[in-house]
Amino acid sequence: MMVNESKGSFTIPGESGCEELTLKMAEKWGADVIRDSDGTELSDKILDTGYGIYSTICIIRDHNEWAKKHPDKLQQTFLMSNPVMAQEEILAIHIMNGYFKEQFRVNDSKEAMKYWQVYDRTTDELIPSSKWRYLPELGNVIIQNIKPFHTYTVSFLAYQIWEEISMYNHITNNWEKEHLMPVDPRYKETQMYLYQWLEKWCKSHPATTVVRFTSMFYNFTWIWGSSEKNRSLYSDWGSYDFSVSPKALDEFKKEYGYGLTAEDFINQGKLHVTHMPAGKHQLDYMQFTNRFVVEYGKKLVELVHKYNKKAYVFYDDSWIGVEPYSSLFPEFKFDGLIKCVFSGYEARLCAGADVETHELRLHPYLFPVGLGGAPTFSGDGDPTTEAKKYWKSIRRALLREPVDRIGLGGYLHLVENYPDFCDYIEEVSNEFRKIKEMHALEQKENGTVYTLPIKVAILHSWGSIRSWSLSGHFHETYMHDLIHINEALAGLPVDVSFISFEDVKQGVLKDCDIVINAGRAQTAWSGGDHWKDEEVVRLLYQFVYQGGALIGVNEPSAVRGYSDYFRMAKVLGVDEDTGEKVCHGRWEFETKTIDGLLPEGYSIKSKENRYLTDGKATVLASDETGVQITVNEFGKGKGIYLSSFQLSNANTRLLLNLMLYAKGMKLTQDYLTDNVDTECAYYPSGKKLAVINNSEKVQTTTISIKNGEKKVELQPYETQIIDL
Amino acid sequence: MMVNESKGSFTIPGESGCEELTLKMAEKWGADVIRDSDGTELSDKILDTGYGIYSTICIIRDHNEWAKKHPDKLQQTFLMSNPVMAQEEILAIHIMNGYFKEQFRVNDSKEAMKYWQVYDRTTDELIPSSKWRYLPELGNVIIQNIKPFHTYTVSFLAYQIWEEISMYNHITNNWEKEHLMPVDPRYKETQMYLYQWLEKWCKSHPATTVVRFTSMFYNFTWIWGSSEKNRSLYSDWGSYDFSVSPKALDEFKKEYGYGLTAEDFINQGKLHVTHMPAGKHQLDYMQFTNRFVVEYGKKLVELVHKYNKKAYVFYDDSWIGVEPYSSLFPEFKFDGLIKCVFSGYEARLCAGADVETHELRLHPYLFPVGLGGAPTFSGDGDPTTEAKKYWKSIRRALLREPVDRIGLGGYLHLVENYPDFCDYIEEVSNEFRKIKEMHALEQKENGTVYTLPIKVAILHSWGSIRSWSLSGHFHETYMHDLIHINEALAGLPVDVSFISFEDVKQGVLKDCDIVINAGRAQTAWSGGDHWKDEEVVRLLYQFVYQGGALIGVNEPSAVRGYSDYFRMAKVLGVDEDTGEKVCHGRWEFETKTIDGLLPEGYSIKSKENRYLTDGKATVLASDETGVQITVNEFGKGKGIYLSSFQLSNANTRLLLNLMLYAKGMKLTQDYLTDNVDTECAYYPSGKKLAVINNSEKVQTTTISIKNGEKKVELQPYETQIIDL
Repeated sequence: MMVNESKGSFTIPGESGCEELTLKMAEKWGADVIRDSDGTELSDKILDTGYGIYSTICIIRDHNEWAKKHPDKLQQTFLMSNPVMAQEEILAIHIMNGYFKEQFRVNDSKEAMKYWQVYDRTTDELIPSSKWRYLPELGNVIIQNIKPFHTYTVSFLAYQIWEEISMYNHITNNWEKEHLMPVDPRYKETQMYLYQWLEKWCKSHPATTVVRFTSMFYNFTWIWGSSEKNRSLYSDWGSYDFSVSPKALDEFKKEYGYGLTAEDFINQGKLHVTHMPAGKHQLDYMQFTNRFVVEYGKKLVELVHKYNKKAYVFYDDSWIGVEPYSSLFPEFKFDGLIKCVFSGYEARLCAGADVETHELRLHPYLFPVGLGGAPTFSGDGDPTTEAKKYWKSIRRALLREPVDRIGLGGYLHLVENYPDFCDYIEEVSNEFRKIKEMHALEQKENGTVYTLPIKVAILHSWGSIRSWSLSGHFHETYMHDLIHINEALAGLPVDVSFISFEDVKQGVLKDCDIVINAGRAQTAWSGGDHWKDEEVVRLLYQFVYQGGALIGVNEPSAVRGYSDYFRMAKVLGVDEDTGEKVCHGRWEFETKTIDGLLPEGYSIKSKENRYLTDGKATVLASDETGVQITVNEFGKGKGIYLSSFQLSNANTRLLLNLMLYAKGMKLTQDYLTDNVDTECAYYPSGKKLAVINNSEKVQTTTISIKNGEKKVELQPYETQIIDL
Repeated sequence: MMVNESKGSFTIPGESGCEELTLKMAEKWGADVIRDSDGTELSDKILDTGYGIYSTICIIRDHNEWAKKHPDKLQQTFLMSNPVMAQEEILAIHIMNGYFKEQFRVNDSKEAMKYWQVYDRTTDELIPSSKWRYLPELGNVIIQNIKPFHTYTVSFLAYQIWEEISMYNHITNNWEKEHLMPVDPRYKETQMYLYQWLEKWCKSHPATTVVRFTSMFYNFTWIWGSSEKNRSLYSDWGSYDFSVSPKALDEFKKEYGYGLTAEDFINQGKLHVTHMPAGKHQLDYMQFTNRFVVEYGKKLVELVHKYNKKAYVFYDDSWIGVEPYSSLFPEFKFDGLIKCVFSGYEARLCAGADVETHELRLHPYLFPVGLGGAPTFSGDGDPTTEAKKYWKSIRRALLREPVDRIGLGGYLHLVENYPDFCDYIEEVSNEFRKIKEMHALEQKENGTVYTLPIKVAILHSWGSIRSWSLSGHFHETYMHDLIHINEALAGLPVDVSFISFEDVKQGVLKDCDIVINAGRAQTAWSGGDHWKDEEVVRLLYQFVYQGGALIGVNEPSAVRGYSDYFRMAKVLGVDEDTGEKVCHGRWEFETKTIDGLLPEGYSIKSKENRYLTDGKATVLASDETGVQITVNEFGKGKGIYLSSFQLSNANTRLLLNLMLYAKGMKLTQDYLTDNVDTECAYYPSGKKLAVINNSEKVQTTTISIKNGEKKVELQPYETQIIDL
């Protein structure tokens, strides 16, 4: 099959029994590749069409037969029992209380039991194992000789007996199939089995051109509860808990010279959310597991290559150890990275990864029920509007940095009743190809999309390994200022990097114009104890004093123990009172205006207890609760404070304006629209100007261009590509 | 002069040149005592009338002649220079920058200099004295061989060259008099001088019946700044900074075996606000100073007694070391305690002190300009309405616990143009005497005002020494939940005590029905690190489990480092996520109703990040931010959580209702009104029911009484005393 030159770069999900529809839609959307999906299989009718074929493999599940024979090779995790208060000197704790029993089974084997721990949580003291025993027939731990009215917990190992993504899809879609169990490749037997299985698979799937690994081995952590009123007890897309096993722990000890305990994972029941700074044990364990995933993973990729197929990885689901910005990632030798995207920052995450082919799987997924139980392709569902909103976010990111392909996933038959959706996807795929083409021309000419001379670095405790994403999707991380900032930056014409505190010490600031630090105190994003490092503080003072700029949001650089709570307080001219300065005077101020800096419609929520340190910062916005936006001269540079940041078109422009102001540039620049609901991108080699409407209303905007200006009217969500 | 029996118990400020007015008003208000005021002196015409005479003495000021001869005997304090960032390896800091130069003069004597300190605030390290020197002619400290882009501060001793209350009155009233300097009785010479001066004074004032000490020696800390945009740099009614001197520090070291440094006071520039838990050094220094104030103070009281005069102390202004609930207070042997009152809790503070005569000085003060610059007795001033609002707050406290006297202060001539004010004060003084009479009858009959069988204890880190007051007045401490709670409790028919964490360990909970812990995390009021004490936690768990109740407000029992942030989270069923549990599931809940518990018009502000621990607590109120009111069964007892508490008539009733509920009592009880804007108090011996209207509108209310009910209509702010 030949794909028309203006077609291609599109992956369509095929479906058995819908061969005609598959081919019709493939033609309409310009697909060059057909894929299967979780729960679907392609028929020969499709496989024989000459399209490229992606076959989805989630390597660690769908081996129930083998898994049943090897119940000790299932994946595991540490769980902590509910805390229970003792009323006497003896206490029984039913350890699985509150957990979803279809997801976990207690591992009380000898190797596992040595990792179990019982804690007095009132004192946070470990209870010696001589004081407790496990009664497997009851599922209870009995603790003796303890203190009444103290609270106790049991940390134990549990097998995962239902792979979580399969479990989620199963329950969401009322599947009736057998529960798929995840096997753990940490064991040699599993490794051999999976290798042989994959080899057999490759042999038996000659039509497949690309093996699309649904990530590698270990899922992000998702612990379910027994109550429907709190089903999702814990969900963290970045944490490594689900990769643990006695074997892994034993090997870790051999390699690192010290042993990890249950408490290194359980952490008083808090676990280690990715939004908090990681400690040494956690980082060591992540490195250890990342290395293991790469080492075994690359053997599977090699095997795929041996069969002359490409190996792409879908960076969602079992993505632990597959972080695209890990220094180990290139060792996998993946040919492509596929990212499911709701947001622009996810498109940038994909676009920036060091891999040959970058592909986005768009939303909505072709499932009857979508995000948060929305009836996307059923009942009152409106998949077209959903698709428009997602594309609006992704398009602006793609204007900044190209990816190679887009596509859909799920059950194709669902689109039949939604012809407007089919038309809209055709439009999107055409737009996508045009954008890709403009980038391609720039690359050919050694150029790039026009970018302002502003290099902005996001400073947080993870640094580049968590470029763009915090941990999961926007709707899961909306409570963090930084995801809003990342999403705003994803489509802005500036150069963006993600740096760690160690990077600062290694001299990265020489390549930065503006540093952004944003988030709640003590989190990974604001940085927590990293701000105790005097070298970091000194370098940032110096950086701003000599002409750089710091944008601090919410509780930037906050750490207790110093004269300032925000270690950058003097740079920002703003600090927060934790209660220690409640008797201290507050500077009177008047809010001032800087022409054009705060766009109409911007909105920043104020936070309590923020105050001016020396009264010299200029307050640009405030309400009865306190200051919202301030700018402060510090030496030759500037400190800019925002009490919070929430994504909106106007706030995105506000952020751009503040960066221009921070850099000492004019707020009006060529190739910027004068309407915050619109944006544009200029491709100098092709002399093309792409103008987009990020709103659901008709918009007009004027764009200053070299020697003149351009006025454009745009329909809702429209993209126009104009020859200059 | 004979005072009519229904008169008396009232202190009027006399004024020279207004003798006729003084006597007219004394008659109208039923005064039995005439006092002078700051800046006034009584003439012989008044002294000879036969009234009791209070003479105001602020012992440490008004000795400028002596002070000028002994400039090294002025009171002192530590100050910290503004922090300054070094740009090179040498830095000059002008240490008095930002301070009000009319208040302080640097003490660079040899004895003082040994206490000066220079700090690197980037690292919080002490700079050795070899690296810096003071240039007195410039007022600069030069620091050498330091790190560029670090920030430095100088802590130094300064004399107070203008006594702060005098300074405040001077500036507020545009006085032209010489600035009064405060002398420090820590020095033997000063002690001898003041003793002799007081003896001479007593001899030369035979008409004086009561020497009214305007507190003792040391003012609360009030540091003024040079800028009118931030005049009050620091103001804490509880902190001891203004009592320091090289001599005190030298003596402290001898007595306690360790030395205090400037940093023990400066605390990184935060000083030690009373709203934060005190450390050992601070508590030792307070005890040391308290003892000194009592030891020298009681000599002055003895002297007054020698001249057959009574000694009262005014507990405001220079009150450091005069805390009425200190175990040392009775040693002064004061005959009376006078408290200036804006609020009910201040009336209770006075009423509960261990002293013979309790007197309240009402507001408004007879000054042209009142609180916050209000034109009380000038221009558009409305002193009557002000007086009504203050009396409304104080009256309900007086219905619960009697004081012996009330009075006014200031310039009497100011009342001449406000006849309605004069009439209203007559009304107040009559009401006061009736209330006093009802209490007197109860006391005579060994009875007391009817009180519900509810013993509530406020638990905070200061315990009983800060009974009722946090540190200063309501309008200075309104940001703390606890002052709102104290004020609500001041007039409620329950038994109130104030307990410390040490008290809990000593077994005080056996005398409590309900414990309240309220405030921001880490503050003195919520308790901070005291919650690390496992014994405290255990005892409170046990207390509630066995039938007690805990009411937690805002961030009760919050401390980092444990599995729960609120150490009482399991009792309350509510905790706060500091960010460590942001990936943890949240329990769904529906708000439920308990009949009559939440009175109409109540209002509780929600706070972010509060969540249900196990989903079992009953949520009574919530909004989109989170839960506002919850109740949780815990064993035989209850945990009740409020996200905040702000004073209002309805919220006061809410608090009462929650206490009744916590104790398992019916919400409708005898001798409670059914209208939240009204309250009542029943005096069983006299069979009198006092009913009050706490609002500016006409109110009707029905009160259930033994064998029936009573319906009452009340005019705005009215008091009715009904015979049952």
